[in-house]
Amino acid sequence: MRVDVLRNVFARNEAAAAENRRLLDQRRIVCINLLGGAGSGKTTLLEAVMPRLRGHMRVAVLEGDLATTRDADRIAALDVPVVQLLTDGGCHLNATLVQHGLARLPLDEIDLVVIENVGNPICPANFDLGEHARIAVLSVAEGSDKPSKYPLLFKEARLVVITKCDLLAMTDFDLDQAMRDIRRINPDALVIPTDARGGRGIEDVAQWLRSRCRVGADVECLNVMG
Amino acid sequence: MRVDVLRNVFARNEAAAAENRRLLDQRRIVCINLLGGAGSGKTTLLEAVMPRLRGHMRVAVLEGDLATTRDADRIAALDVPVVQLLTDGGCHLNATLVQHGLARLPLDEIDLVVIENVGNPICPANFDLGEHARIAVLSVAEGSDKPSKYPLLFKEARLVVITKCDLLAMTDFDLDQAMRDIRRINPDALVIPTDARGGRGIEDVAQWLRSRCRVGADVECLNVMG
Repeated sequence: MRVDVLRNVFARNEAAAAENRRLLDQRRIVCINLLGGAGSGKTTLLEAVMPRLRGHMRVAVLEGDLATTRDADRIAALDVPVVQLLTDGGCHLNATLVQHGLARLPLDEIDLVVIENVGNPICPANFDLGEHARIAVLSVAEGSDKPSKYPLLFKEARLVVITKCDLLAMTDFDLDQAMRDIRRINPDALVIPTDARGGRGIEDVAQWLRSRCRVGADVECLNVMG
Repeated sequence: MRVDVLRNVFARNEAAAAENRRLLDQRRIVCINLLGGAGSGKTTLLEAVMPRLRGHMRVAVLEGDLATTRDADRIAALDVPVVQLLTDGGCHLNATLVQHGLARLPLDEIDLVVIENVGNPICPANFDLGEHARIAVLSVAEGSDKPSKYPLLFKEARLVVITKCDLLAMTDFDLDQAMRDIRRINPDALVIPTDARGGRGIEDVAQWLRSRCRVGADVECLNVMG
């Protein structure tokens, strides 16, 4: 009984995710699902990367949160179109909520939509939102055991961003071990160590995002994320 | 339909939680539910505090995780009875899983059971496990906006432990703001800033736990947590 209901929940989500992907493909918009634990540094990463996308591509953000608009306010301050998606205490975004968010964006004027998921390394990884690729974020302060403890988060990611590397010397985080564990879980993922304060790796993340989407006389988005 | 099923899930959990609490009360065992995000420092806090409880009370740990036994291994190394509760990818512990864990502990030889919940600041806060009190853990590296973003975690806690205070100077964490936000959400919570590496606050946490449970000729546990 309970299993059936869960199956229905997932089936409904998958249908909405497929619709989102179809809409995005029609509009030639690339969509990234940004996942990671609470305080892993997702919003700070976006704050650092966004200015480096300006002039290359037009970006919008769907900002997932439980209750507040704090992160959306931070993104809006960058003069980037942003829609707040509130889960009302729910632990993940679902594709239907994203559908409502997309409907409120000026899609004709956007090349890339970044969905910042709810801060949670577990549940969001189970829900396809219609994105073309996922970025997993792990902060040095969270500990290098986290890839092994939360494998699904890393298994489905095209890019893994390790944040707060300025704290490496202050913590027990074993960068080599974390890289090895991530590669074991997901041999194809690119891993970029970053430090948004010092700037380390930020240009590499921006470059990765820019390469997802070539904007020119005829906009061509590489929806098959390489 | 879906709401009814969720209601059933919660009702079943509440029944199991009530049974757990009854069993613990009969055995005069105090039970603490330790909650916090992934990498907030829950296991490290236990590693620091456990040696300070020795000789005062007999402690056991139920260790919640998705997939690995890493944290249980760390607790077992302290020579503390520990049972691993694996959620198989599930994002929170439920009272039935705790019931199975309690059945595997030598309850006659235990004064305090600490349940370390799955690393997730959201879902675990919705599930009563039969505990007598909750401790919420927040690391400085997670950011001082987290009490406002995850209010339920803090609202239900008797004690809030702020961890990794050795990183205060390296981060934007505003300790005063975090304390104010926690007090606004939960005026009755005690807040203890800690640093497991330098030792700050660890004795205060140990003292708080020791005061939950007075062990003497006639063991008397203060199940009404003050």
